[in-house]
Amino acid sequence: MQLPKHKITPGQFLHGLWKILASRPQTPPSLAGNPLVETILNRRSVRNFTQQPIPEDVFSAILEAGRVAPSTVNLQTWSFGIFTAETWKTTFGSALPFRAQKAVMILGDTHRNRSVLETFPHSPLVEYSVAVMNASLAAMNMNIAAEALGVSSVMLAETGRSGLLDAGYLQEKLCLPGGVFPIMTIVFGYARQAYPPMPPKLPLDQITFTGHYHETDPLILQDWMAQMQAGYKASHLFSSFDAQLQVYRSKINQAEEDLQRMIFYKAEN
Amino acid sequence: MQLPKHKITPGQFLHGLWKILASRPQTPPSLAGNPLVETILNRRSVRNFTQQPIPEDVFSAILEAGRVAPSTVNLQTWSFGIFTAETWKTTFGSALPFRAQKAVMILGDTHRNRSVLETFPHSPLVEYSVAVMNASLAAMNMNIAAEALGVSSVMLAETGRSGLLDAGYLQEKLCLPGGVFPIMTIVFGYARQAYPPMPPKLPLDQITFTGHYHETDPLILQDWMAQMQAGYKASHLFSSFDAQLQVYRSKINQAEEDLQRMIFYKAEN
Repeated sequence: MQLPKHKITPGQFLHGLWKILASRPQTPPSLAGNPLVETILNRRSVRNFTQQPIPEDVFSAILEAGRVAPSTVNLQTWSFGIFTAETWKTTFGSALPFRAQKAVMILGDTHRNRSVLETFPHSPLVEYSVAVMNASLAAMNMNIAAEALGVSSVMLAETGRSGLLDAGYLQEKLCLPGGVFPIMTIVFGYARQAYPPMPPKLPLDQITFTGHYHETDPLILQDWMAQMQAGYKASHLFSSFDAQLQVYRSKINQAEEDLQRMIFYKAEN
Repeated sequence: MQLPKHKITPGQFLHGLWKILASRPQTPPSLAGNPLVETILNRRSVRNFTQQPIPEDVFSAILEAGRVAPSTVNLQTWSFGIFTAETWKTTFGSALPFRAQKAVMILGDTHRNRSVLETFPHSPLVEYSVAVMNASLAAMNMNIAAEALGVSSVMLAETGRSGLLDAGYLQEKLCLPGGVFPIMTIVFGYARQAYPPMPPKLPLDQITFTGHYHETDPLILQDWMAQMQAGYKASHLFSSFDAQLQVYRSKINQAEEDLQRMIFYKAEN
């Protein structure tokens, strides 16, 4: 978790904003019109929902996409906490973030299988990593299934004390046994407005390599960072990208301490 | 990483097999026929590919789904290693697993942003967790985009020294700087056969909770484990679920040691 090394100038702000507004996912022309590809590429994180409820069959299909997601050796090392606006309020004493209709908390779960599988006692980090990986696959599958059904969502790891930045708090609040790790909460609803522009994404050739790892071009990285700062400023008039990262900064030491305890706890049990 | 606590009987084998063959994803009847939902729910891990090449535009769209995936504060903490059968062979000296056409290695990357963002020095586990989470979201997005384009795939964390079970080996082989973590490799191709049955998935009410975490029914867990063993036996005539887990067991101590070094290395640099 990090803070930008440099503030942007007004010129960089305008240039960054222009680049964001001009950028689009790169759909190969030959594949334009494939509805699922378009759905995947045009997905956005949505933080402004109508009060229209999500029908039960639609929400069931979203959960089913999580249930049937792939996982290492099909071990399904996940649990899903399901909340309505009411049960979220009862549990946490606060409103569901962004006044969404439903929430699914995604947790890595290495606890469940212990009653039927011999544990390997000295591999807490590998087990944790596998659980985070698998649970995140399930999360993405739910997110895309929702998009496919016209339901929007955003994945939260911090807002509303909903994910790994509040792992210790959630462990206590939800009575999580050892080996269960809160990762994120997806909140779902119908988007109130047209989807926002795509946030600035690094070019493909800067995030890929063949053979050996290679470093990203520093100028491209700086340009991207200026876009990030401009985009945040434009969409959060009374805040800034730096301020958002400061929120993370304020929680990260506690989160680190809690995760250390939660992951390595297992080795002793 | 774990071994089953009990061997299954021939009766459990047949019962388990029958349950696997009879199970289907639960598509709500009102949503049957939605092609996007069907694609997501009927996705399978495929390990048997034809030698038909994947057209460049199709593969580009798959990579684009990774590039535009969601990530925490849009930090895109991932890198993708892209391989053909030839470059895989050159790099690793072995054939691409399952004779696939293309491979994308998914790596968590907390290294790239360090040149433009101030690092938080004492949060290696939080940073690592965020990177694994984000990179896994990108992986699932690519996997579903491939399905949408008729391309099948399987995510590998161990087979062919392709993921986190070989983190230390891959760090050296691919010249990965500190803060870059191999997670998995997705291999892509066209499926040679009709999709296999769905591997045994736990019922939704056993993997979800509302309010507080609750334990899974032990009888349902045992039944699931019997199905896991039966399914593995049926599809791997000369192997077993236990044998597969033994492979993991043989690698896991080294992987744990390498991950510890790779994650906490950062705190000192």
